[in-house]
Amino acid sequence: MTAQPPYLELLEAVDSFPHIDISKTPYNPRVNLAFYQLLLPNDPRPHGYIHSSIVQKLKWSAAFQVSHNSPRTVQLLDDSHGEDTAAICSRAFYEVLEKAVEDKLFPFLKTMQWENYRIVGARYPTVQILRSAARLFGICSRGAHMTAYVRTNEGMKIWVGRRAAHLFTYPGKLDTTVAGGVKAEESPFECIVHEAAEEASIPADFVRANVKACGAITYVAKSSDAYGDGSDLMTPVILYNYDIELPEHIVPRPQDDEVEDFYLWDLEQVKKAMINRQFKTNCAAVMIDFFIRHGILTDENEQDYLEIVTRLHRKLPVATSASAP
Amino acid sequence: MTAQPPYLELLEAVDSFPHIDISKTPYNPRVNLAFYQLLLPNDPRPHGYIHSSIVQKLKWSAAFQVSHNSPRTVQLLDDSHGEDTAAICSRAFYEVLEKAVEDKLFPFLKTMQWENYRIVGARYPTVQILRSAARLFGICSRGAHMTAYVRTNEGMKIWVGRRAAHLFTYPGKLDTTVAGGVKAEESPFECIVHEAAEEASIPADFVRANVKACGAITYVAKSSDAYGDGSDLMTPVILYNYDIELPEHIVPRPQDDEVEDFYLWDLEQVKKAMINRQFKTNCAAVMIDFFIRHGILTDENEQDYLEIVTRLHRKLPVATSASAP
Repeated sequence: MTAQPPYLELLEAVDSFPHIDISKTPYNPRVNLAFYQLLLPNDPRPHGYIHSSIVQKLKWSAAFQVSHNSPRTVQLLDDSHGEDTAAICSRAFYEVLEKAVEDKLFPFLKTMQWENYRIVGARYPTVQILRSAARLFGICSRGAHMTAYVRTNEGMKIWVGRRAAHLFTYPGKLDTTVAGGVKAEESPFECIVHEAAEEASIPADFVRANVKACGAITYVAKSSDAYGDGSDLMTPVILYNYDIELPEHIVPRPQDDEVEDFYLWDLEQVKKAMINRQFKTNCAAVMIDFFIRHGILTDENEQDYLEIVTRLHRKLPVATSASAP
Repeated sequence: MTAQPPYLELLEAVDSFPHIDISKTPYNPRVNLAFYQLLLPNDPRPHGYIHSSIVQKLKWSAAFQVSHNSPRTVQLLDDSHGEDTAAICSRAFYEVLEKAVEDKLFPFLKTMQWENYRIVGARYPTVQILRSAARLFGICSRGAHMTAYVRTNEGMKIWVGRRAAHLFTYPGKLDTTVAGGVKAEESPFECIVHEAAEEASIPADFVRANVKACGAITYVAKSSDAYGDGSDLMTPVILYNYDIELPEHIVPRPQDDEVEDFYLWDLEQVKKAMINRQFKTNCAAVMIDFFIRHGILTDENEQDYLEIVTRLHRKLPVATSASAP
């Protein structure tokens, strides 16, 4: 039997931003804790935390009021006069980012032609912002992951994907069966249904009828070094988890060019890959949550069980519900 | 269809202790935030938080050093000289509590003849302490809950228990199918196996073979008013959750005198009972976690979904792993 994977270490690589209360951390430009709160109109709750280097670099339009007093804030003003506030907010973000693209301020911000995320917990649904800007502004990023498994005579097996070698992020790493960013206008469920068809050729009708929502994990990441800059940034992340049991005749097959192959692995093979750090970091976290929900990882076989369970559900430093105080 | 239960409100009734960082909260005897850290030998991490009123009331033996300086601490000293430190710690707690029983200091502390809890995360396994003293010392309390469900032609049904009318706590309230406190010397799994037999007449062999560990929920409770005192106290709680699918021929039946009856209810009936606050408060939390894991409560049908998911896994203010720093 394979040794137990170092689950907590795997999580620490994902939930990598320090466990501080950032809302109460004094502004200190000499260390890397130099964040401005991002505030939406008529809402005192931070929706993001923007590093001071980013605040300085961007050209803020008149729609934003930047305050260098404590607490330091970037306040989006309400210029809507009772009209469509969400659309006006979205437009204000668009214009600032469009200028940043024109000025080539950030290597990862090359085009406005990409999908939008929504600002989670905004009281004006749906405020949209360019997906790649979420990390710039410390806005919550939403993903959906589906783990497909098969009950066989030899026990449970899991469908593991391998990312294509040409991908910019985590090339060749192992992945959840199906995963994708949740676009502004869709729900996590709709996301997983179309990603399952696009990435793994699993029929949408079958997914709709059989997939099971089974919770979410949350973490706060330091920005990836994959981009060559911005390692001081923080990104709060929500991953919605879905399970689906596949009959043996439904076999995931690569459809778009993002997945190289799928493997049907037993638990020992999956654990071995976790030990060897072969998974994309956040996919290891999704797998750990799957192991917990399916009784594979338990209090009896893992001394850090409680640490792991709570670490997988970190309270995020941004608003996550429109109705919360 | 029944309206959606107020899930977040139900959780707030369970996770009722303020969301403050108690380790950093200044001692203030005029408000109710007047806690002493409980420290075990050779370990700087708090294992409990003892309210100042309790610190004053108890007669501490020479095994304890009480410091009224900041941070205020009750330090259990290492008198073991390399011998069995766990047994010596357990003995020290026993003696202080035995004296409190003799002196009739607390109405809920009538006898030493009851089960022991372990101190979670202690580096000397297994330090034991009287179950009813966990709340006195703000030590983590461990429970195990098993939800039994049946797949029927009319959809999923859940076995709900009703607590006996003579019970001291929550008489007549609805309960998880099977639940119990995890004794010092047993694992959560062993707890649920024997409780299933004792409380619900479900054969131990069947439970062993079919029950599935599926995570844990954590919360911090203010002490129950059921005891008529001590509403300033805090108790961190871990509940280990188990699911079991029952075939129609296995029917839970009351065995001991703690359960009055079992009902096989569909989801609408369970939701209605949650709305009407008929569940024991922490059993509602267990049911909410079940609803999340089984795709009944989702991001699509509940605007506070993320708040609920993270709230169910609160980071506890005490050590939960022997190996954690």
